[in-house]
Formats: sequence, structure tokens, C-alpha cells
Amino acid sequence: MKTDARVQIDPARVERAIWRMAEFGADGETGVSRTVYSPEWIGATQELGAWLQAAGLRVTHDAVGNVWGRLDGTGGGKAIVTGSHIDSQTPGGRYDGALGIIAGYIAVTALNEQFGLPQRPIEVLAFCEEEGSRFPDARFWGSQAITGLLTPERAEEVRGFAGESIGDAMRAIGLDPALVATARRDDIDTFIELHIEQGPILEHAGVPVAIVHAITGIRHATVTLHGTANHAGAFPMDLRRDPMAAAAEIISGVIDTAHRMGRPAVTTVGRMVAEPNFPAIIPECVQFTIDARHPDPDARACLYAKQDALIAEVASRRNIDYTVTYASEHQPVPCSPEIVQLLEDVARDRGIPAITMASGAAHDTQQMASIAEVAMIFVRSKDGRSHTPAEFSSIDDIVLGIEVLAEGLYRLAYV
Amino acid sequence: MKTDARVQIDPARVERAIWRMAEFGADGETGVSRTVYSPEWIGATQELGAWLQAAGLRVTHDAVGNVWGRLDGTGGGKAIVTGSHIDSQTPGGRYDGALGIIAGYIAVTALNEQFGLPQRPIEVLAFCEEEGSRFPDARFWGSQAITGLLTPERAEEVRGFAGESIGDAMRAIGLDPALVATARRDDIDTFIELHIEQGPILEHAGVPVAIVHAITGIRHATVTLHGTANHAGAFPMDLRRDPMAAAAEIISGVIDTAHRMGRPAVTTVGRMVAEPNFPAIIPECVQFTIDARHPDPDARACLYAKQDALIAEVASRRNIDYTVTYASEHQPVPCSPEIVQLLEDVARDRGIPAITMASGAAHDTQQMASIAEVAMIFVRSKDGRSHTPAEFSSIDDIVLGIEVLAEGLYRLAYV
Repeated sequence: MKTDARVQIDPARVERAIWRMAEFGADGETGVSRTVYSPEWIGATQELGAWLQAAGLRVTHDAVGNVWGRLDGTGGGKAIVTGSHIDSQTPGGRYDGALGIIAGYIAVTALNEQFGLPQRPIEVLAFCEEEGSRFPDARFWGSQAITGLLTPERAEEVRGFAGESIGDAMRAIGLDPALVATARRDDIDTFIELHIEQGPILEHAGVPVAIVHAITGIRHATVTLHGTANHAGAFPMDLRRDPMAAAAEIISGVIDTAHRMGRPAVTTVGRMVAEPNFPAIIPECVQFTIDARHPDPDARACLYAKQDALIAEVASRRNIDYTVTYASEHQPVPCSPEIVQLLEDVARDRGIPAITMASGAAHDTQQMASIAEVAMIFVRSKDGRSHTPAEFSSIDDIVLGIEVLAEGLYRLAYV
Repeated sequence: MKTDARVQIDPARVERAIWRMAEFGADGETGVSRTVYSPEWIGATQELGAWLQAAGLRVTHDAVGNVWGRLDGTGGGKAIVTGSHIDSQTPGGRYDGALGIIAGYIAVTALNEQFGLPQRPIEVLAFCEEEGSRFPDARFWGSQAITGLLTPERAEEVRGFAGESIGDAMRAIGLDPALVATARRDDIDTFIELHIEQGPILEHAGVPVAIVHAITGIRHATVTLHGTANHAGAFPMDLRRDPMAAAAEIISGVIDTAHRMGRPAVTTVGRMVAEPNFPAIIPECVQFTIDARHPDPDARACLYAKQDALIAEVASRRNIDYTVTYASEHQPVPCSPEIVQLLEDVARDRGIPAITMASGAAHDTQQMASIAEVAMIFVRSKDGRSHTPAEFSSIDDIVLGIEVLAEGLYRLAYV
């Protein structure tokens, strides 16, 4: 039977760590631009290493630059790991990614100070790369390395926005891309990631913390519609092959389909390009993306089927040639029911208001699920903002999230 | 009572003129790029002057470079004028604009050869500029000069895509922008413009020629929708302020409104830009244009009112901030019922299949309506194409159009 640890978390220490970490890549008053393998990133990983070492953890930097801080367990066994990613959007804010690392550092430090060494090893982890903000095709670079998905060849293939390969960027800071496979781990029992919510659900519910039971499935489709460009005045409506009319009907329809399904289904058309894009010419071609997500496999299949049928029906009825390509597709990833239950119990036992919800965003946790039991903890985001210097979570909410994390780690590693 | 002239038109002469004129600014196999005041334009205006002079017309180039060829009338009086514009899109085809000048040259030459001098003066006119393809704000430069709308100040204000003023472009070829007002004419009785249809109505009706009873009214609106950019996964549909969802609903609605009203109502959304235009971010801002046209003043008001109401309703319901600005607005211009009737009579008397329709495109004729009785003749366009090297009208159809024009000029100037 688990014992309640009542780990004490010092809000002042949390606040200092957030502010200090935000200095690496500081961008404007509250922004952070810290891309993988940049000087700002090196500064942040070194600073974190120093913190973890000072807290009594054994620090290693693996082949792709993930930072690990380990507290060996008196009883051995597979590790209980917590952390998040140290890179940011350009600019992002102080919280997305960094907060999960700081939470791990604070929680493990408090556990070590207040309860000594655990029975099972605990590790704090900073993934080197999650956002893809320097290398768009390198998303989850750190967790892909840990889960054994990376090869040296891939390091030479992946290119940055500036044209360089990620292998070159690694070499430039003393990492050897030939060794990426050595970052693989097979001795992790459980991975828990604390992260800001990035949405407004907690704020609207008036709740500071959520336990995440699943990470949504994502499909990025690109729809290209080809009609016939013609004169905007001289061509009667009934004789047009207007891809803009088709695009508008499809976009309305796919968004409406997700809306009517209700939470947590979402669909976004974020990108749209028309050609030739002149006011007085019926477009020849309209291209747009559909980002559609659902954490439940069956509901997700239903959402995609309805949207695919709509595209085909509208294009056919309007005599529009079309192609649909899929840039990326992530299956929904359920979290471990036992870990979710444990964290729900912790929140209830500590009197911390919490709901259980799915994550609509992607996270390293979905990669880690292939090698470990996983769960996540969300902290309320002001106005649901993220990927912007405006993102904000209160210290009060963050401390509650860290309390859930620390108590969870205690129950997994100490008793 | 009018007499039937049975003017004879030589197809070979028509074909030679089209091919010769297309050499000035030839762009690819069938394209023409001939912007106002360019070397290609100078070549074309000089060539036309030579043709008209050889045909016995008195040739003048006015202050903005419009070319006039005059056959004085034995009885004096105001002039019967026909022509079109000599500039092109970049690239356009051989027919848009040039065909109306060639038709006037062929018709007046045939009348002069077959019937001698008219009672009333007849003039062939090449407008210097209509397309705005070098100076986007100079559309109808030639007909604006003739109708007294131009000032020397305006010539210094209007800028080309390359940055130069149209005044500078005029000076560079020996025209004095201080004299633009001298191009004004107040002695024109009737203006008739032959032009390719630029749409598919005649082709679908299986008819070679149309008489134009009105030129449509045009409104160019730019709609800007502001929502809130947020994470495509973490923001529930019910809490979004998504300007793309609003744009799609509005675009569908305004296009559908015109479609349901039936011909000749048209509405086109040709240009659309989203920001930040990333697949996984709900857009902050979506901007698009609405080109809406109707030749009937009451129906036009009804079309615009429905579209304006739709924009307001959708934006309000979706909590989207919006602005609508109007880049240009042209009132519908009815043609002269007497001239339309005369041309309809000509077509019927000559056994030339013709329908009467509105023009969905803008033309110099709508400017000329402020100083003269006006009408237009349309010739069938293959696939309704224009503003492209692919535009094409058959010599058979063109000859029928020129027969209607020549016979109409005969009835107006000879009897």
C-alpha cells in the first residue's frame, strides 16, 4: 500500500528556475527563441546540467544532446523518468517544454532533500528537440533517439530552414551523428511529462491541473483543387469550374464536422494558397491543409471518413480535379491506465482540483509510450496561449502541478 | 428608312491584319505583350496609322497617344466612331482589344471602297490603354482622356509596376502630359466597340455574335477577418475565434448568392491570404477579395445587400472582428437602346445569328457612354478564354461580327 509523502515544493525556487532558464534565448520581454544545437540551447543544457549536479544527480549528455540527471535507486530496477523538451518555438514563451524540465528538477530535488534516495532510480530528462523550429523534419529528435528510431543516415538527410543538415549542426557543437543509435534506452519503466496545457479547457473549467489519459491522433492532409482560371466578369456562375468555391465549401464542411462531433474532435485549416491569386480572375488552383485530430481511434476514423467523403463529394459535384496528400499521420496514443489512475489518486489525496483529459497537442510522451508506461500532467494556460511569448501559467498552478508530479514519483520510486 | 448596304468583308484581309498586328509584342507562339507606351506599342500604333492612311483616312495621334483615323462626312455633323484598345495583358492574346481596332479598320475601309464617302464623319479609334497591365491605376487611360477625366497632375501621380509615373513614360516617347486635357472630344455622336466575348455564353448558345445592351456594374471589396491565432490541437472548436471558418462560410455564401440569382449575376473570390498560414495554427487573420457584378442597378443593389448582410451575420455569430473596404466600384452602364436595336436589326436582316446580352467585363465603352451613344458587338470566344495567349475566335465568326459593325456604321453614317 502506497504512503502519502506530502512532498513540499518551494514556490520561490520554482519561480527562480523559470526566470533563469528563460535567459537562454531570451527574445523580447517574455519570449524565448532556443533552437536545438544553437548557442542559446548549449547555454541552457549546460545550466541545467549544473543544477542537476548541484542537486546530487549524476549528469550525462547522450549522443543527440539529451540531458539526463540520475538519482540511483537503492533497490535498482528500471528507471522512473520525468522531463520535457528544452528547445522552443521562435519565439515561444518561457513555459512550453522548459516547465516540464524545471518541474522534474524541482520535484526530484525536493524528494532527495526530504526523503533521501529512492528505491528505484529516478531520472530527470531534457529532450534536445521537440518543436521542429530549426529542422522541421526533426520533430521529436530527442525522444526518437531514446526510443531507437534514429540512424546516422537520417542525421544527414534532415535539413534545417537554413539548408544545413542536422548532422552538420551536431558536428558543429561536438556531437557525432554516427553515434545517434547509442542514445537508445531500454531500461525505462515509466515516463511522466509535465507540460502547459496550451489550450483553454482548464481555464474554462476553473481547474489548475489535468491528468492526461491520451494524446490525440493527428492527420495533416494537403488538399489541392484544380479548376479553370477565367475572367471574373465574363464567365457565368453555372459554367465555372471554380476551385475557390469548392475549397470554401470543403473548409466549412470539415471544420463543421469536427465542431458537431464535439470535444475533443478538432479540425483546423491553417494554410491556404490560391493561384494566380488576383481579384478579377477565377482561381486555377487552390491548396489548403487540414489538421484533424481525435484521441479515440474509432471516433478519429469516423472524423476522417466524413471529411474524406466531403472532399470527394464537393469536388465531384463541382467538376474539380483534386488530390489529397498526407504530410504526417500520428496514431492516438493512450497513456498507461495505471499511471493515470495513480496521478488521479495523488491529486485527490492532496486535495488538488484536477480533471482528466486528452492532449490535443503532440508531445515526446507519445514517442516514449513505445518503450515505457507513460502519462502527462497539464498545468492551466492563461487564455490557452502557447507557442508565443504571451504564454503564461501562474506559479500557484505550477506548484500544484509539481506537487502531483513529485507525489507520483514518490509513489512509483520510493514505496 | 434605312437601306441595306450588304457591305462585303474579305476574310483574307481580316486574317492578315490580325496576324500582322500580333507581331507587335509577340510573346510565344500566340501571345501578345504590348503595354502602353512600350516599343511594341509604338510599333503597333505606327503600323495602324499606316494602314488607316493607306485606306484614305486622315490620321492623328492625340495627346495621350490614342490613334484616330477619320473619313470626313459629306454632310458634316458629329462623328460615328468605332474601335477598341491597342494595349494588351502581359501576356494576353491576339484578339482582346486589337480585334476591335482591326474590325473598325476593315469595316470603314470596306465602306469607303464599296460606297465612297459617308454623309456623316466616321472615325476608327485605337485607345492607347485599357488593361492597366503596366500602370494598374491607369485603366481606361485613353477613354478617360477622350471623355475629359484626365489632368496633368494625374499623369504624375499614376505609377507603374516598375515605379515610374505614366507622365514620365509619356515624355520618354515624346508625349507631353501637360496636354492630356486636349485629348477631350465633344463631337462624337455614337461609339461602337467590337470585342471578343471573353466568356463562354455564345459558345454554349451556339451563336457567333452578340449585341451588348449593358456593361455590368462591378464592386471590388476586400474583406479582412481577425480572430485569435491558437494551437490547432489544444483549442476546442467551441472556444475558437477562427477567421478561416468564417471566411469559408462567407466565401461559400457570397458565391452561392450570385449563383442562385442566376445569369448575369457573378461573384468571384480570386484572392485570399491567411496569416500566419501554418498548417497547425488557427489563423489570426484571413483576407480575401469579392468581385461581384450585375448589369441591372436594382438586382445589383440586391446582390450587394445580401452579400454585405452575410458578411456581418457570419462575423458576428463567430465573434470575428472584420473590415470591408471597396477598392473600386463601377456603376452598370446601359448601352443606347436605339443603337442596340439598330445592331439587332442589322443582324436579323443579314441573317447573322445573334443574341443580346450584358457584358460581364469592363470596357472603354462604359467611359464613352458619358459623351456619346454607345453599344458593343461581341464575337464568340473559344472556351470563353481571354487574357491569355490561348484566346481564340474563328475568322468566320469575326467576319460575321465585322459585317454587323460595317452595316451598322453604314446605317448610321451613310443614309
